[in-house]
Amino acid sequence: MIVVLKQNYTENQMLEAIKAMENGGVKVMVSKGIDTTILGAEGNSAGIDEEFLAQLPGVERVMRVSEPYKKANRKYHPDDTVVSVCGKKIGEGGVSLIAGPCSVESHEQIINIAKKVKASGATALRGGAFKPRTSPYAFQGLEDEGIKLLIEAKKETGLPIVTEIMSTEKIDLFAENVDIIQVGARNMQNFDLLKQLGHLDKPILLKRGLSSTIEEWLMSAEYIMAGGNNKVILCERGIRTFETYTRNTLDLSAVLAVKSLSHLPVIVDPSHACGKAWMVERMSLAAVAAGADGLIIEVHNDPKNALCDGAQSVTPDEFKIISRKINTIADCIGKNI
Amino acid sequence: MIVVLKQNYTENQMLEAIKAMENGGVKVMVSKGIDTTILGAEGNSAGIDEEFLAQLPGVERVMRVSEPYKKANRKYHPDDTVVSVCGKKIGEGGVSLIAGPCSVESHEQIINIAKKVKASGATALRGGAFKPRTSPYAFQGLEDEGIKLLIEAKKETGLPIVTEIMSTEKIDLFAENVDIIQVGARNMQNFDLLKQLGHLDKPILLKRGLSSTIEEWLMSAEYIMAGGNNKVILCERGIRTFETYTRNTLDLSAVLAVKSLSHLPVIVDPSHACGKAWMVERMSLAAVAAGADGLIIEVHNDPKNALCDGAQSVTPDEFKIISRKINTIADCIGKNI
Amino acid sequence: MIVVLKQNYTENQMLEAIKAMENGGVKVMVSKGIDTTILGAEGNSAGIDEEFLAQLPGVERVMRVSEPYKKANRKYHPDDTVVSVCGKKIGEGGVSLIAGPCSVESHEQIINIAKKVKASGATALRGGAFKPRTSPYAFQGLEDEGIKLLIEAKKETGLPIVTEIMSTEKIDLFAENVDIIQVGARNMQNFDLLKQLGHLDKPILLKRGLSSTIEEWLMSAEYIMAGGNNKVILCERGIRTFETYTRNTLDLSAVLAVKSLSHLPVIVDPSHACGKAWMVERMSLAAVAAGADGLIIEVHNDPKNALCDGAQSVTPDEFKIISRKINTIADCIGKNI
Amino acid sequence: MIVVLKQNYTENQMLEAIKAMENGGVKVMVSKGIDTTILGAEGNSAGIDEEFLAQLPGVERVMRVSEPYKKANRKYHPDDTVVSVCGKKIGEGGVSLIAGPCSVESHEQIINIAKKVKASGATALRGGAFKPRTSPYAFQGLEDEGIKLLIEAKKETGLPIVTEIMSTEKIDLFAENVDIIQVGARNMQNFDLLKQLGHLDKPILLKRGLSSTIEEWLMSAEYIMAGGNNKVILCERGIRTFETYTRNTLDLSAVLAVKSLSHLPVIVDPSHACGKAWMVERMSLAAVAAGADGLIIEVHNDPKNALCDGAQSVTPDEFKIISRKINTIADCIGKNI
Repeated sequence: MIVVLKQNYTENQMLEAIKAMENGGVKVMVSKGIDTTILGAEGNSAGIDEEFLAQLPGVERVMRVSEPYKKANRKYHPDDTVVSVCGKKIGEGGVSLIAGPCSVESHEQIINIAKKVKASGATALRGGAFKPRTSPYAFQGLEDEGIKLLIEAKKETGLPIVTEIMSTEKIDLFAENVDIIQVGARNMQNFDLLKQLGHLDKPILLKRGLSSTIEEWLMSAEYIMAGGNNKVILCERGIRTFETYTRNTLDLSAVLAVKSLSHLPVIVDPSHACGKAWMVERMSLAAVAAGADGLIIEVHNDPKNALCDGAQSVTPDEFKIISRKINTIADCIGKNI
Repeated sequence: MIVVLKQNYTENQMLEAIKAMENGGVKVMVSKGIDTTILGAEGNSAGIDEEFLAQLPGVERVMRVSEPYKKANRKYHPDDTVVSVCGKKIGEGGVSLIAGPCSVESHEQIINIAKKVKASGATALRGGAFKPRTSPYAFQGLEDEGIKLLIEAKKETGLPIVTEIMSTEKIDLFAENVDIIQVGARNMQNFDLLKQLGHLDKPILLKRGLSSTIEEWLMSAEYIMAGGNNKVILCERGIRTFETYTRNTLDLSAVLAVKSLSHLPVIVDPSHACGKAWMVERMSLAAVAAGADGLIIEVHNDPKNALCDGAQSVTPDEFKIISRKINTIADCIGKNI
Repeated sequence: MIVVLKQNYTENQMLEAIKAMENGGVKVMVSKGIDTTILGAEGNSAGIDEEFLAQLPGVERVMRVSEPYKKANRKYHPDDTVVSVCGKKIGEGGVSLIAGPCSVESHEQIINIAKKVKASGATALRGGAFKPRTSPYAFQGLEDEGIKLLIEAKKETGLPIVTEIMSTEKIDLFAENVDIIQVGARNMQNFDLLKQLGHLDKPILLKRGLSSTIEEWLMSAEYIMAGGNNKVILCERGIRTFETYTRNTLDLSAVLAVKSLSHLPVIVDPSHACGKAWMVERMSLAAVAAGADGLIIEVHNDPKNALCDGAQSVTPDEFKIISRKINTIADCIGKNI
Repeated sequence: MIVVLKQNYTENQMLEAIKAMENGGVKVMVSKGIDTTILGAEGNSAGIDEEFLAQLPGVERVMRVSEPYKKANRKYHPDDTVVSVCGKKIGEGGVSLIAGPCSVESHEQIINIAKKVKASGATALRGGAFKPRTSPYAFQGLEDEGIKLLIEAKKETGLPIVTEIMSTEKIDLFAENVDIIQVGARNMQNFDLLKQLGHLDKPILLKRGLSSTIEEWLMSAEYIMAGGNNKVILCERGIRTFETYTRNTLDLSAVLAVKSLSHLPVIVDPSHACGKAWMVERMSLAAVAAGADGLIIEVHNDPKNALCDGAQSVTPDEFKIISRKINTIADCIGKNI
């Protein structure tokens, strides 16, 4: 951390700033130039209260030099993390495809979709059992029964299953039965949940919050990793902006940014980002061209009668085409692009 | 709900749209004009999937006519809700002042601050025991011990206590000991938590999420109220925008909007919104002038050594001045402004 | 336009709303249902003041049914607009590449870069002569001299030239000498400038404003087209959001949206969107995969000594590689993707 | 400017960074600590390309220490700037009230409103002659005729007149006839216009752009002041955010921020910020409580038939009440609040 003092600072103000830094557990290096005096922190400055320092009377500006995330940081872990799920590798260079309905609705529905997405090359099956809905009056998912149906679909097809957790009270249920536990955008900073997931030995799919900066997103990954669970897969799913034509604004440059800042795999959810089924194909191809390690796509056998998010679901036939085009583009850009 | 068909819609497309509406549980009124054909939903359209309807081939646009929140809606409950806390009334026309430190740090600290803010007219004492921190390595609060210290401060001063809950696992602890349970901005859409709080008979302070629209905020209030708990106090605490000079952007027009749309009391948190202690006084006065029912202000006896958010905390002496000025301005605008 | 009345509206309030609509030049169709009464505008509702209507006492909600842009609207002009520039076609299915330095700096510099980008397949040469700089103290461009140098580069290489206009006072200079006149993001709603450009017979490259909605962007195109100039090329260049890692957030879903709503060609500027040279390649490929008609890329022979925006400029050698990969991906997705 | 090098930087990378700084015209101070090496710029670092430096291979982070605006900066001009307009002072401690219709519509209309707002205490009369409208098909103002009518209103009432300029071509007309020249939000970064206004000896009302940071806003003031015109009045009028209930989000904390960073007077436009007449009173009071030097409020004698922005205009009678309440609150907070 670097602290720049005001031009007309007093000796006491400088000492006050130094003390505030030392309280945070670092040694302080003082550099006096003609115009500018700088205090540099030597050591781990995580314990310094940056905002407090910034408003001390003699302080002009405070700059944090190093990222606050360590375990998620590529600087300290230069090699890509590869997450294994039932023998499949996410983040190893290919494009993983997670597909399935927004909500699990029935045995027939989930088995039907599972078989079709598997035939089109899906890596894993997604399906919501516990649904975070804006309205308390909307369908909230089949809950425990939904998990049961997902397990049946896994038995039938062999596809690993991905589903969202909404409460620490269900941790055991998920840990035993689910292959990739999803943390939704709204719970990205549900820190109690993140902490408990950190104690599992299970892949976690961490969606970016609607208004989370890249740094906050990586700090949430850090919460999970700080507990010992390094199997974190990040998922960009659109951020909230002033534009309302799409439900959210898909931020593909964040994929590049995160892959540079972190070693964790990053996948993209074009379905929730855009909220429109007709955009899914193109945005999927763009995500792969940008370098995403995979996609999570909503697929429903009968979007018109879906209990949730029909507008953004593609049909199994459309998914088949998307999957083929993704393969073409992945081949075309190769590994060295 | 109103559905406008495309100019060149076919009969089948119209029937498809009507069916989708009827599936949602309403009757459909068809109005054919020269240029425009409109389908109007008669009855409760909460069950209709709006986004799905919107992308049907014959559909030009879908408009929801009524707000999706009912219990929080002023239309159905024209009178202001007044929330009683240990005999004090929030939302009855005056300005309630909740004050206290970001974190409870020690017996001495919390008692000291509690006495001082009480002497300056505070209605209730705030203090964090469980702290939502962006970093897993930052101070996470004294947790259960913090609740204990708050109870001691209440015994000493008689001030009701307000503190944030972060997990459903602590519901019983909070229900027994806390007078107003705060739901933080990051948990505004932690729906499992909201549902469980809906079953308590206890005031809930619901902060607006960083990127929550007014409607989403009211829908989160609706979650609590749908469970039977009508004692919801809303708190505007700044939204995330592109401006970085302040930590967030305090949206005072939201106070007016919410008081018009809903009957629930609304208070303002200038400390978290701005992140700068020197702005708290002015923004407090502005909030009162805008019509807020109260304020929640961070007060710390020794901001320089606060374990959390020292930069935005005012001292007890500063709070005394702010409190006096708030009273002056409240008197000045009277009840009829 | 559709107006929904409040449930308890009075006859007078309805008449007031009808009058406000009729004042705007339309006939009004009244549909009374059990719960809902709707007023539908028959005819062109462009003259109705929507916000005024919305706040009349009997009015619940106002919905505009048709887009306010006509000439830019794909509904009325289903075929893609193709813009010809010196014999080259933009929007005809291929990927046009506009490349060159942020600022024209010298004869040698611009000739050198022009030759190199031509060799790598560029369709046109970009270069700033009049520069919109946030600071009055920053380099403001070579101005008229810069235009002269661009003309020399065109003579030498045959590449059409693209450069930004900042003031109506330079319209003649640009109309005579420039092949594509660029309107920058900051001037997207400089309506006087747009009106005057509407009277030229010259392609206009209209960048999206930093905080412009897609509709506002198309309305600015409409300004130009309303004057008779249909040669408008749209350019997505990132929008302002809360994320600060990239300079702006490139909104690739806007490319799809605009190509659906409008018949105009859309290109993408990854250089300004991201502000980081290392992101340009990947975001270029993503833009092509999303369906962009072209790219505008900053290329500088010596980024380290560029007078402006060196951080986001790629070298001619890097551009050569990007151009080759763009061709590969364009081939791979073919015309039918 | 401070540059922090990466931990494992090479000597050559350091020299490259130093050279890039020296190219920008400064001397470089090198401070080597145990963990961190810092390069500090001595002298005016305005010429350094910050983004370019930031991406050099050996560079970890770049921090600008001083604000890029000088003439608008309170550091170098600690005393408040007071702008005199026809003998009235803006920024001297009171609350200036600028009022009038969105558009000048007729002799009768503007004289009528001018008399009424004067009777209610207005300092100046606003009225649009040249209107920036999103749609080319909307009423564009009476243009030159509108200026003529404003002059008549000034003759009749003695009120100074405030109106918006949209093009450099009208500079002479405005310089001769208008008392305060307004630059609208959409032209805040129309740098050619700002430069030319810098050469006048005339107050300029500079509105904040919809998505302008506080720093960009002050840089636009700097453009005007760099030309020699120090009579700049800033106007906060709402920023674009994700919230759509209000037209924009009024950022009252920006008033405090700007008054701290700059010596220029700051007024607030609640009418355009909210877009709803019923919010104007409350937001006006809040703005005064926050410390604004004045307000600019839309007043129309017949909002229902206004040619523009009727929804946000209050009537002269409502303005009278607002003006009285503003006076009450201004008295109540006194000068020392």
